[in-house]
Amino acid sequence: MAGSVYAQTNTEELSATIIALEKAALEKWNQGDPSGYLDLSAEDVTYFDPSLEQRMDGLENLRSYYEPAKGNISVDRYEMVNPEVTAVNEMAVLTFNLFSYIGNDVSKWNCTEVYRLECDGQWKIVHTHWSIIQPDIK
Amino acid sequence: MAGSVYAQTNTEELSATIIALEKAALEKWNQGDPSGYLDLSAEDVTYFDPSLEQRMDGLENLRSYYEPAKGNISVDRYEMVNPEVTAVNEMAVLTFNLFSYIGNDVSKWNCTEVYRLECDGQWKIVHTHWSIIQPDIK
Repeated sequence: MAGSVYAQTNTEELSATIIALEKAALEKWNQGDPSGYLDLSAEDVTYFDPSLEQRMDGLENLRSYYEPAKGNISVDRYEMVNPEVTAVNEMAVLTFNLFSYIGNDVSKWNCTEVYRLECDGQWKIVHTHWSIIQPDIK
Repeated sequence: MAGSVYAQTNTEELSATIIALEKAALEKWNQGDPSGYLDLSAEDVTYFDPSLEQRMDGLENLRSYYEPAKGNISVDRYEMVNPEVTAVNEMAVLTFNLFSYIGNDVSKWNCTEVYRLECDGQWKIVHTHWSIIQPDIK
C-alpha cells in the first residue's frame, strides 16, 4: 500500500511538472516567442502539424520552421482542456485539447507531446503532434 | 564500443518489433477489422482522430467507437512512409506518414503511436493520434 501511494504521489508530481513545462512554453508561444518550445525540444525531436506535407525531423529544422512565427502570434487567452499524462520512468506522454482565443475567434486543437528524461535530469520533448479538431466540419 | 553496438542493435530490433505490431494491426484495419488495434491497445489508451470533438479515453470507449468500422473499410494498399521509433526501456514512440489508397483516391495521414512495455512483456498502445495532412489545402 505504501508503495502504491508513493507511486501515485510521484505520478501526480510528474504530471504537474510536465504540464507546467508545457504551459510555460505555450504561454511564450502565445506571445510570439517560439523559444520556450525550442529550448524544451530535444535534438532528435519529431514533429507534426497541419501545415506540413510530412513529418519534420530534428531541432534545427524546427528552429527554421518557427522563425517566421517570431513576433507574429498574439493569443489573448487559452484553455488547456483535460490534460492527461501517461508515464514510465524515463518517458511521459502529455495529451490535451487546446482552445486558443484571438479576439472573437477560437482555434481548437488536439495536442500530443512526448517528453523524455535526459541524462542531465531535464525533461525534453522528443515528439510533438498538433492537429485541428474536426477540420472537415468547420 | 561494444556497449554502443549492442544498444544500437537493440534499438533496431525494437523499431522492427514496434513497426511490425503496427503494420499487423493496420493491415487488419484496412480489411475492415478493428480487432488488431483493439487487441494492441491498453485499457488506459488515449486517442485523437480528426472526427472527434475531444480526446477519447479508455479501451472500452475506443471499442464502441470502432464498432461501426467493422466490415466497412477496404483499403486497396498502403504506404507507411518514413516510420521512426524513439524509445526508452519501457516506452516507444512510433511516428509515420500513411498513404491509404482506395481505388483512385489516396488519404494522407500523420500518425503517432506511443507504445508501453507491459508487465507481461507485451508492447501495448497507450496513445494514438491520427490527423489529416494539410486538411485546409485539400
